[in-house]
Amino acid sequence: MIIAENEKPIGMFDSGVGGLTVAREVMRNIPNERIVYFGDTARVPYGGKSKDTILRYSRQIVRFLQQQDVKAIVVACNTASAFALEEIRTEIDIPMIGVVKPGAKIACEVTKNNRIGVIGTKGTISSGLYTEFIRDINPCAQVIGKACPLFVPLVEENMLKDPVTVEMATRYLSGLKEQDIDTLILGCTHYPLLRSVIREVVGETVTLVNPAYETARSLKCLLEERGLANTKALGDDSNPYQFYVSDAADSFREFANTILPVDIRNATKINNIEEYQETGGTV
Amino acid sequence: MIIAENEKPIGMFDSGVGGLTVAREVMRNIPNERIVYFGDTARVPYGGKSKDTILRYSRQIVRFLQQQDVKAIVVACNTASAFALEEIRTEIDIPMIGVVKPGAKIACEVTKNNRIGVIGTKGTISSGLYTEFIRDINPCAQVIGKACPLFVPLVEENMLKDPVTVEMATRYLSGLKEQDIDTLILGCTHYPLLRSVIREVVGETVTLVNPAYETARSLKCLLEERGLANTKALGDDSNPYQFYVSDAADSFREFANTILPVDIRNATKINNIEEYQETGGTV
Repeated sequence: MIIAENEKPIGMFDSGVGGLTVAREVMRNIPNERIVYFGDTARVPYGGKSKDTILRYSRQIVRFLQQQDVKAIVVACNTASAFALEEIRTEIDIPMIGVVKPGAKIACEVTKNNRIGVIGTKGTISSGLYTEFIRDINPCAQVIGKACPLFVPLVEENMLKDPVTVEMATRYLSGLKEQDIDTLILGCTHYPLLRSVIREVVGETVTLVNPAYETARSLKCLLEERGLANTKALGDDSNPYQFYVSDAADSFREFANTILPVDIRNATKINNIEEYQETGGTV
Repeated sequence: MIIAENEKPIGMFDSGVGGLTVAREVMRNIPNERIVYFGDTARVPYGGKSKDTILRYSRQIVRFLQQQDVKAIVVACNTASAFALEEIRTEIDIPMIGVVKPGAKIACEVTKNNRIGVIGTKGTISSGLYTEFIRDINPCAQVIGKACPLFVPLVEENMLKDPVTVEMATRYLSGLKEQDIDTLILGCTHYPLLRSVIREVVGETVTLVNPAYETARSLKCLLEERGLANTKALGDDSNPYQFYVSDAADSFREFANTILPVDIRNATKINNIEEYQETGGTV
């Protein structure tokens, strides 16, 4: 059966469960779209790893998603968006978007004093990519970045409102507050799950930007512009969301069911993601 | 040049830097031995991953070490010792030891009340392997295990004596104290670096067992029994310790130089560890 281009699924990937916050926003905001999600749970986390390793892993996953016949790819991971997106985009013939640019764009729209904070993994912050995108849009903006390396393990331990998490948030964020930011980008897909603690520490005057939501909006525009939006509702499709992981499918499924608006029935484990042929040159 | 069997290096591997605590004990206690160490820094951490993934990764690394012509292999990682050692040992023709059995053995020797605590990653604790080995030696022993998943990221953030680390140690260890243990196995190679905090929380009456030290002692006996001990001092060898990693060689080297008794000059990055042929069947 030949499937019309606009009825094909969106491919989406992350180092693990964090990108599910992006999948959630796509499900809520573009409800006609099918999704094929890959979580690289065997090699999680990406945040402290080098650019060439992230690029190699991302290429393998993109190749896997292409074999699932997706019509577009969302890099639902800030680290991979920072390190791999620009290069891989030139190597494939379907549209590809990440989470960094949409987050940068909305931060520029909402800031009033041009002082924008960004929090993320070591990789995302050291890449400087948020700063670069923000300055492209608004050369007057001051961007203050801060890596928060313990936030991911704290989320994965489900310590979302724990005093230890509040203490670490206070340490990580107090310097940003002193710099008088009025906008803070949650530059790691895990961080929206810490929203209430972060809000408590930075106070009500700072606008929190969730790139997951902005990415879903950007994806919607992109699909419409390219004539790729699915105009049919998913009513007849009993399983529009497919999940693949490189390890620990059961715990992935459990975590997914705590944050997604629909229950997922299963996640399929792929044992040989490293064997998916790279789409570009070797790294 | 043909190298005599007993002058060949010891192969050693871990998910990352943790196994350097084992390398340190080998350097101190068997100073004639050369070492080839592999740290799987691209795929770190191993602690939360499944048995079949750990087995697959361990097989690739063992194959890599065999190609470096090592005379024996030390699995310097509790998770890999728990999940992969017994199976891979049957597939290769050089001796292979892990860190779990030596730690279990000494704990049985030092306990007076037969109540032994074990702390480690989720993988190590859920494997039940410490309990199994301890019960083999002393069927009367009560073994109380506790996973401490935040300890590894706290060590990697160098928060070795931080109040947050003390708080997490108190939470993780207070249940063990209440169970009246007199011996506590530090069942993850990162944990000896938290020794002073753990000592503070459990008090002076509990004996802390460091499997890294016991593993070096077991390795020494094994090499002597098999006629594999190097009888020549390393005086002439200007570079007896070789380090390989799958990512981020510079930060590995920096960390290594904070804990090893000798400065290492460089760590070599291996980009294709997943391509090393597996020694057994596919998983």
